[in-house]
Parts: sequence; C-alpha cells; structure tokens
Amino acid sequence: MKNVAILGSTGTIGRNTLEVIGRHGRSFRVVALAAGSNSRLLEQQVRAFRPEIVSLERKEDAEAFREKTRKIALRVTYGPEGAEEIGGYGKNDIVVSAITGINGLRPTLAAVRGGKKVALANKESMVVAGSILQKEARTSGAQILPVDSEHSGVFQCLVKESARHIKTVTLTASGGPFFRTPMRLLGTKTVEEALAHPRWKMGKKVTVDSATLMNKGLELIEARWLFDLDPSQLRVLIHPQSIVHALVEMRDGSVIAQLSSTDMRIPIQYALTYPERRDAVLPSLDLGRVRTLEFFPVDEKRFPLIRLAWQALAEGESVPVALNAANEAAVAAFLARKIRFIDIHEVVRRTMAGHLKKKVRSLEDVFEVDRVVREKTIQTLQKRY
Amino acid sequence: MKNVAILGSTGTIGRNTLEVIGRHGRSFRVVALAAGSNSRLLEQQVRAFRPEIVSLERKEDAEAFREKTRKIALRVTYGPEGAEEIGGYGKNDIVVSAITGINGLRPTLAAVRGGKKVALANKESMVVAGSILQKEARTSGAQILPVDSEHSGVFQCLVKESARHIKTVTLTASGGPFFRTPMRLLGTKTVEEALAHPRWKMGKKVTVDSATLMNKGLELIEARWLFDLDPSQLRVLIHPQSIVHALVEMRDGSVIAQLSSTDMRIPIQYALTYPERRDAVLPSLDLGRVRTLEFFPVDEKRFPLIRLAWQALAEGESVPVALNAANEAAVAAFLARKIRFIDIHEVVRRTMAGHLKKKVRSLEDVFEVDRVVREKTIQTLQKRY
Repeated sequence: MKNVAILGSTGTIGRNTLEVIGRHGRSFRVVALAAGSNSRLLEQQVRAFRPEIVSLERKEDAEAFREKTRKIALRVTYGPEGAEEIGGYGKNDIVVSAITGINGLRPTLAAVRGGKKVALANKESMVVAGSILQKEARTSGAQILPVDSEHSGVFQCLVKESARHIKTVTLTASGGPFFRTPMRLLGTKTVEEALAHPRWKMGKKVTVDSATLMNKGLELIEARWLFDLDPSQLRVLIHPQSIVHALVEMRDGSVIAQLSSTDMRIPIQYALTYPERRDAVLPSLDLGRVRTLEFFPVDEKRFPLIRLAWQALAEGESVPVALNAANEAAVAAFLARKIRFIDIHEVVRRTMAGHLKKKVRSLEDVFEVDRVVREKTIQTLQKRY
Repeated sequence: MKNVAILGSTGTIGRNTLEVIGRHGRSFRVVALAAGSNSRLLEQQVRAFRPEIVSLERKEDAEAFREKTRKIALRVTYGPEGAEEIGGYGKNDIVVSAITGINGLRPTLAAVRGGKKVALANKESMVVAGSILQKEARTSGAQILPVDSEHSGVFQCLVKESARHIKTVTLTASGGPFFRTPMRLLGTKTVEEALAHPRWKMGKKVTVDSATLMNKGLELIEARWLFDLDPSQLRVLIHPQSIVHALVEMRDGSVIAQLSSTDMRIPIQYALTYPERRDAVLPSLDLGRVRTLEFFPVDEKRFPLIRLAWQALAEGESVPVALNAANEAAVAAFLARKIRFIDIHEVVRRTMAGHLKKKVRSLEDVFEVDRVVREKTIQTLQKRY
C-alpha cells in the first residue's frame, strides 16, 4: 500500500490519476490533494478517496470547503504554502506533480526534497529549474519519474523489462516479393521472382521462405523458445518497410518496439558486442524521410504456410521438426524448378497431414523424425510432380 | 579481445559478421570458420582473418584446401564432424551460428554445450530442438543471443540500456489542430479551434501549447534535464497518429521506441506502479487496424515558437525561464481573446529578444526572472494589442 499525494487533483492528469488509483484500490491510498478553484470536484474526490489533507488556491474557497466537510476528519489549507505542504506531506510515498505552469515548482521541489517518488507531469518545473531539481533529487534520493507520455516513453525504452510483464510479442514480416501480387498469378511465379526480395539480401532458402512467409512461421517457433513464451502470446504483422522489427506489448498496454535500417550488420554487431553497443556502421534511420510505416494483418489465404506453422507451434513435440523437414525438401524442389511456387504449400500440407505426432526427447529423435519426413516429402514430390 | 568462431562463414550472415569484425579489429579475433563448398571465399577469409581451424562440407574440398593453404598454420577439417568441431572449439568465446537448415543443429549444440556465448542466426535449430537447446544452455551456462533481426529486436526491447549508449532521443508531436491548416488561415484561428486537439484531451494551456508546438519545445528542455542529455542529442518529429511517443536511437543505429494508445492513464499508471507493470486499462493497440504511422520533419515556418525553444535549450541559464514566462502570459492573453493565435509567437519573440541572459542559481533567481519577464510581456501586450 503506497500513500499518494496529487498536486493538481482536479485537472486532467489529477482526475486520470484518481481513476487509475480507483482501479488498483488495494495498492494505493490517497493521503493528500492540492486543487485550484474547483471545490465541487475536490469535495467529490474527498468523499471518494478520504485524504487526510487538501488545499485550495484561495482562502475563501478553503474556508467554505472546511465548513462543508466539517464532519470529515480532514485538514484544509490554501494558497501556495498549502500546495507546498501537500507536496512535502510526511506520509507521502508518491507525489503526482500535475499543477500547470510555474506554480507547480515550489510544491514539486517540496516533494523532491522529501526524497519521495515524484511522478512529474508539471513540465514547467524542469524547464525553469531542471538543474536545481536534479541536484536536490541527488541529495534527497528522490526518484523523478516522467508522466508526460513522451518522456515516459523515453524512460520505458531504457529500463530492463521483466518477462512477467510481457503480454504479447509481435514479429514483423516484410511480406516478401508477392505481398501485393494478385493471387491468381502466384502459380506462375518463377524462382527468380521469388528470389527478388524487396528488402533483405539473404540466402536462397530463407528468401523463398520469406516469399511464402514460412520464414516468419519458423521465427514464431524460434521466438517461443528464445523468450520462453506461450504460443498464444505470439503475433505477426506484415510491415512492408521492414523498419520495425519487433514489438513487445506489456501487460499495461505499453508497447516497446525496436527499429533500424534493413541491414543485418546491426543485429550481428549487437550480438557480438552485447551488452555493449558500438558505433553504427550505417547512417541514422531518418523517419522524417521514410515518412510512412505500414502494418497489415496477415492474409492466410495468400500465405497458407503460416497457418501450418501456427499449427506446428501449437502442437509442439515432433510437429515443428516435420514442418521444417517438409519445407526444406519442398523449397529445394522449387529451387531445382521441379515444382511451382504454390506447390510448396501443397507439398508441406500433405506431408504434415500424414505425420503422426510423437515425443522428441533427444537429438537422435529429432534427426529420426527429420529423416523420415524428408523421405516422405521426396516420395510425394516424385509421385505427384 | 574475444575469440569468435563462425558456423557458415561464407553465407550472408557469415560474410556480414566478418565485415563487422573487420571494423572492430582490436575487439575480436577470428579463431574458427566452418564453410560449405565455397573454398575460394573461405581462402580469402583465411588469408584476411588467420583463424586456427576451418572446415568444409566435403572431404575432397578440404584436402584441396589443405594443399592450397599449406604455408599457413591452419587445421583443415570437414563434414558434419568438422562443423561440430568448429562449434565446440575450445578457444571460442563467441560462436556465430549461421549454417542454414537442420545442418546447423549439431554444431550449434556443440557451442551451447561448451557454455559459449552463441549468436544464433540458425533458426531451424530452435525450431526443431528448442527445448533441448535451452536445457543444455541452462546446464552449461551458455548465453543464446538472437541474430535474426526480429528476435534481436525483441531482445533489445527487454534489456536495460545504459545512458552511454544513447545517440539521440526523438520526442514526437501530433502537430495539433493546425498541422495541415493553410498558413494564411492561421491568423484567424479562434480559441475554440485551438482547443480542438485531434488526439489528446488536456487542459487549455497545454492544448494551446500543442497547437503552437511550444509544448514540444518545453518538453525538449524537460527531456534535457530528465535524461541528462546534451541539447544536440534531442530531436522532434511530427507524428499525427500520436502512437509512437518517443524513439531512442542507440549509438549502433538501433532505435528503441515506445508506443501506446493515446491515453494518459497508461503513463500515469506506469509512474505509479514502476518498476512493476499492472494490467491495462485499455484494449491492446492494434497496429494492423491503425495501419499507417506517419512521421514528418517539423516545419519551423509553421511552428516558429519551436525555434525559440531550441534557442532557449541551447542558451540555458535564465533563457528557458524567460521563454516559459513569456509563453504563459501570451497564451493567457490568447485564451482571454486579447490577441490572435499567431500573435503568441510575436509576443514571445519580442520578449525573448529583450531578455538579458543571467545565471539562475536558486529558486529565488528563477522566480525573479519569471516575474520580470511576465511583467514585460504584459506591458508588450498592453502597448501593442
């Protein structure tokens, strides 16, 4: 249970803060509220949240308020000193600083001097007295947390996230060369067309997998193991610009995303230098020039292989092994010009349909499933194509 | 100096890895390379990076290679066992696993068993044997770092970032109600039009500041103090959808961004519950429905107040105090219908031009500058409007 004071309780931020606190009733207790001239709303807030002390801007308002609330155990104060008293109130654990303008400075400083956790929405305090506030915070041990959405965003980009906070993980896919190709033309697509990836320069196998979206299917299964996620937490979005690579949605609705130019040297360098980061090999990403980032849901009619990957992800055990084996064999046949582009799906689908799921406990089990499925796929290929 | 082995050195990832290593010559030493059949490229790599051991897929290739490189102290091996030996080579610190397909599994497992840092680009290993690899990693203490751009992205969204890694911080601005208004019509915009913000529901003062972009100017100065940044590290982008709130560019060119629905309850809740995250008050952000995120450079002709904010940020001392005081007075005059929307800039500009920069060491200094500038602004307002 944390004691919360709100500087500016009747303003937009103050009202939203009380709404959030109302939803987490057992975690937070409102102990102090500083308002401006909206006595009526402050009275409602007092009756709902039962603080110990409140302040209003004007003396007359404070006196009338004391009269109206005389049956409640409540201290009523006023003026700049009143707001300052709210900010520095001894029982506070968290002070939400949301008085607009330079009037917020003294009460905010009182909170900072008290060594409190200060949730700062009053940007003017920092604008006019940033160095003073930061110096006082270093002395008192106060932690200043931004509430402005942009600064909260910066802050969230920098902190370590616990796996417990993750709600969903979205991997993006460029959609490959055939994202906008009319469906009826997919059958006639050549090896060369499948290899003409619009964004990434990669090996042949993975480039074909990008055109079918199987690459993203494999990546879903990879992500499940790399980050210990439940399959239900995974998502895919088509993002033709390939600039946003992944989005992690936290349980509070905030999303952290990673963006960069489409160049493998960036993640390679990161893996080599982690936890350090070294200077860029490329010019900065300029979103003002890129201008538009687009996101589309995946059309599983166009990319039916991703549906097979979702199934394999859900089933687990030997099914992902079979999926990968059938796909490797089918893509090899396509690259050898033995089957058409759309046949890759048909071949994998048939093989998967005939696969009996079993446990894989060892590397030997994995290789055995791989060998059997690969042979079956090759038989299917020989029989039907 | 870290010793690096590359499984799949002649493929796309392998070649990019060597390029990255070439740029950081003193930090990494290549000790082992496993290639497929591209002997010619492997020979170039051997001559450039001087590994101790290499492998090729076929015995014949390996024998021919040994012949060609017999003047170099180098062990040449081949086949699946060769690749496995590279993965498990005792001197490795980091193993980049970039052999395509299930063939990458055994060498990757060898690296994991060796307790190495494994930079994983071979997704099929995880697809077919994720649980086995993770179990082995727990036993050996190996750290598996993703190289796939999407998984590297997820990983980067979760780690703590050091302030040393920050290159730039970009705050986004919606652009407010007048982002697309023809310039010649800005003069006639009413209080009601300025208060009709397209994205955020906020107090009057900050809503007008959003329409002039002064709000972002104040936020730049706030960010400078909150995150201890140099003014040159700050950026602003117009982003009409107000979904991406901030972008932090790291020195390696990777960008971490924070996104959420446009609702203040999200950052407020985060500040209250930090370092925990609680369940969302809102439905998940659905980028597949939002579809388009746009970014535009700031047009300083349209938003001249932001230029004054950049100047105040660069000058420091009393200048941000003066900026804020002049702006508060000018916005109050606009809200009282005493001046036109475009006059806000003119009033602030005139006041700033007449301000003599001085040191502000205490709260008293701040309030003194604030009082003087506010009075001057009011005089200007009375004289000219």
